[in-house]
Amino acid sequence: MWRNGMMKQYEGFTWEQLVERKKKVERKYEIYKNKNFNLDMSRGKPCVEQLNLSNEMYKLGASLDFISEDGVDCRNYGLVDGIVEMKRIFAQILGVSEEEIILGDSSSLSLMYGTIEKAFIHGLYNCEPWKNLKKIKFLCPSPGYDRHFAICELFGIEMITVPMKEDGPDMDMVEKLVAEDESIKGIWCTPIYSNPTGVTYSDEVVRRFATMKTKANDFKIFWDVAYIVHHLYEEQKLLNILDECKKAGNPDRVFIYISTSKITFPGAGVAAMACSVDNARHLRKLISIQTIGPNKINHLLHARFFRNADGVKAHMRKHAEILRPKFELVNSIFEKNLGGLNIAQWTKPKGGYFISLDVPEGCAMEIVTKAQEAGVKLTPAGATFPYGKDPYDKNIRIAPTYPPVEELEQAMEILCTCIELVVLDKILSDGKDSISISSQSPVFAATSH
Amino acid sequence: MWRNGMMKQYEGFTWEQLVERKKKVERKYEIYKNKNFNLDMSRGKPCVEQLNLSNEMYKLGASLDFISEDGVDCRNYGLVDGIVEMKRIFAQILGVSEEEIILGDSSSLSLMYGTIEKAFIHGLYNCEPWKNLKKIKFLCPSPGYDRHFAICELFGIEMITVPMKEDGPDMDMVEKLVAEDESIKGIWCTPIYSNPTGVTYSDEVVRRFATMKTKANDFKIFWDVAYIVHHLYEEQKLLNILDECKKAGNPDRVFIYISTSKITFPGAGVAAMACSVDNARHLRKLISIQTIGPNKINHLLHARFFRNADGVKAHMRKHAEILRPKFELVNSIFEKNLGGLNIAQWTKPKGGYFISLDVPEGCAMEIVTKAQEAGVKLTPAGATFPYGKDPYDKNIRIAPTYPPVEELEQAMEILCTCIELVVLDKILSDGKDSISISSQSPVFAATSH
Repeated sequence: MWRNGMMKQYEGFTWEQLVERKKKVERKYEIYKNKNFNLDMSRGKPCVEQLNLSNEMYKLGASLDFISEDGVDCRNYGLVDGIVEMKRIFAQILGVSEEEIILGDSSSLSLMYGTIEKAFIHGLYNCEPWKNLKKIKFLCPSPGYDRHFAICELFGIEMITVPMKEDGPDMDMVEKLVAEDESIKGIWCTPIYSNPTGVTYSDEVVRRFATMKTKANDFKIFWDVAYIVHHLYEEQKLLNILDECKKAGNPDRVFIYISTSKITFPGAGVAAMACSVDNARHLRKLISIQTIGPNKINHLLHARFFRNADGVKAHMRKHAEILRPKFELVNSIFEKNLGGLNIAQWTKPKGGYFISLDVPEGCAMEIVTKAQEAGVKLTPAGATFPYGKDPYDKNIRIAPTYPPVEELEQAMEILCTCIELVVLDKILSDGKDSISISSQSPVFAATSH
Repeated sequence: MWRNGMMKQYEGFTWEQLVERKKKVERKYEIYKNKNFNLDMSRGKPCVEQLNLSNEMYKLGASLDFISEDGVDCRNYGLVDGIVEMKRIFAQILGVSEEEIILGDSSSLSLMYGTIEKAFIHGLYNCEPWKNLKKIKFLCPSPGYDRHFAICELFGIEMITVPMKEDGPDMDMVEKLVAEDESIKGIWCTPIYSNPTGVTYSDEVVRRFATMKTKANDFKIFWDVAYIVHHLYEEQKLLNILDECKKAGNPDRVFIYISTSKITFPGAGVAAMACSVDNARHLRKLISIQTIGPNKINHLLHARFFRNADGVKAHMRKHAEILRPKFELVNSIFEKNLGGLNIAQWTKPKGGYFISLDVPEGCAMEIVTKAQEAGVKLTPAGATFPYGKDPYDKNIRIAPTYPPVEELEQAMEILCTCIELVVLDKILSDGKDSISISSQSPVFAATSH
């Protein structure tokens, strides 16, 4: 997935050629700056064409009977965790039973926050409330999803960074840590088309998660499968972690989160969670005190629109048609401008919403700033790490889905120029000697993917 | 609002007449029981005709452009606290500014829970997190809303019952308690057409709430105006408590909750809260970590359906047309069956969702059980008091909105029979002497309304 690291930067260039190249790059950057380009690529947002794919759902509204398949009037009170036909669709996608599903409103983040909040104050099934404990720590495979980390920060949960490898988090490190430290109570995972690395966890990694010995009896895995049906090419499979946990005798270890945010509408989708029947029963009791219930008409609209998991999959193939050219465009622009220079590595994900770009250490923040000055707003450098701090200042998250193709092309050209600008500046200001030793220095740190 | 208490039960009846009456009532009850009647009146649910009033909203969906008035695509990410045109409608209803409003998903209960949860873990604006304190107490005007009390119970908040009077809670008691006890951090209020008493707080009461001295700097009023536009007759006004709090120099004292659950759809409405700008800004920051945001398409549908607060008021007059006959029917059946017997007092509310019925002390639970055995499921006796315990076992909440008129009539006839059955049984088993002293015994306790 990653292009070769550990190579000499600007291999084959003479000092004079680098000086000349920097001048050219500076001129290019000035021209871009004067164009008053303006594009916000900071978040992974669907584009208008993707949103339009689901507009038909609201045409159904005009003749909607409002009655669920088991006779519940979705307009009225009742069913604190949603309607059965929408549960079934998520159950089919996740390979779990309907009674293992709890539906929410639009935001799966809010279901994650809700689980953590309940773990803190009221206690999860068979667990003491974490507020009674002195110290809570979570493992955070990184780069990862900034909003997971923000929840930890808010709750004062200490985050321990775990490097990502090609098949998932560094499981040797995970197993060692959870076996030793009772205060480690959880881990955040985006196990399929991981945000931002695009990594899908191998079967082996999933099994190790399910079976590993943990010092804490109440260690929990927060399994965010936001991109489980978001294939750009052929369907990739993720091993069913709830099944594996059950087999391993740890049925209550995992909470799975999913939503239709990037299937239908981020602003009006349906979120869900899945967990063991005992966990779900315990949570439902707490949820019934927290809320009258989620929006059931929205559940019904979604269920009628898709009918079943196959309907979702067919729908996602239309998304892929729109997104694939964008991902391939970014790759081809990177290839064209940066290929062979050994100053950048990037992922070619098979799904999901992001391309993860690694630049030489100590350059990411400056590149993002330069890009912003030229009108391209990227995800802040460091955002994909706990506490917003990339220890090597080298990772940049690219979110290619939202902009129209022409704007995306322009933005990526600008980004490539910014990368060269910053890297050349560093090399040249380090002096002539630096270039000859760069092949020894680990430009792409050992934590690389 | 309350019919006379302290009167002699079955005034003017001889012992023999009472024995005879009991036999008749028993025969009636047996006949009812054999009818296999079955009606759930336990919750305040809108009826189908009320729900139908808002079906048109989903007809709008067919031609919806999805764009809010300030250009936000409601289908996509953005706006953690909702769209401006829906904020404006609530702002108009509540007499606050749009920046004092935070929109949620359907459930205002979930906004209440969210405030308490944040007060506990993260701390409200300018307040220490309550989890750091040894003891938290709330005042609970009662009878009140069981779901408010359930939140307190879940969080281990000690509840102190405050009696309700005709113009609101007993403010002498409230003022005394909050002035003395620093651990009293909050009070639950349903200040207009209160659940279940129907009481609307007087201007004087609202002002006392805003101005009273509290020992705790972080004393908060949780002001649930669920029924603020739910007039059965002419519009009743509630003084604007946020204004009064500002005038009194206590702008951060109050959190106001509202929803369209009983305006449009309980299963798919829009909830909102209002508070000072400082409180709102602080909460928004926390909410932005909790959730990606509420369902904005639902906000837009509601805003387009109503246009403004006048649209809401016009809509509520249609609700009143449907509900008024039901409330009047209950009153007339009670009047016909129980009038002059001095064994029941009931409210004649000018709005809201409930009739509050007081029976002789120690009879409520038994009456509710008898009614259930005859097929009428009422709100469990005691539910309207903290910890589900009515200290006098005399209050029964009647929710007349949901059943069709014919079923409601039948149910209320059954209830009247059950009341007589239980009360006569008590009188007759107490023996002949009891009847002569009943005029001295306070049948309707001093806490009566």
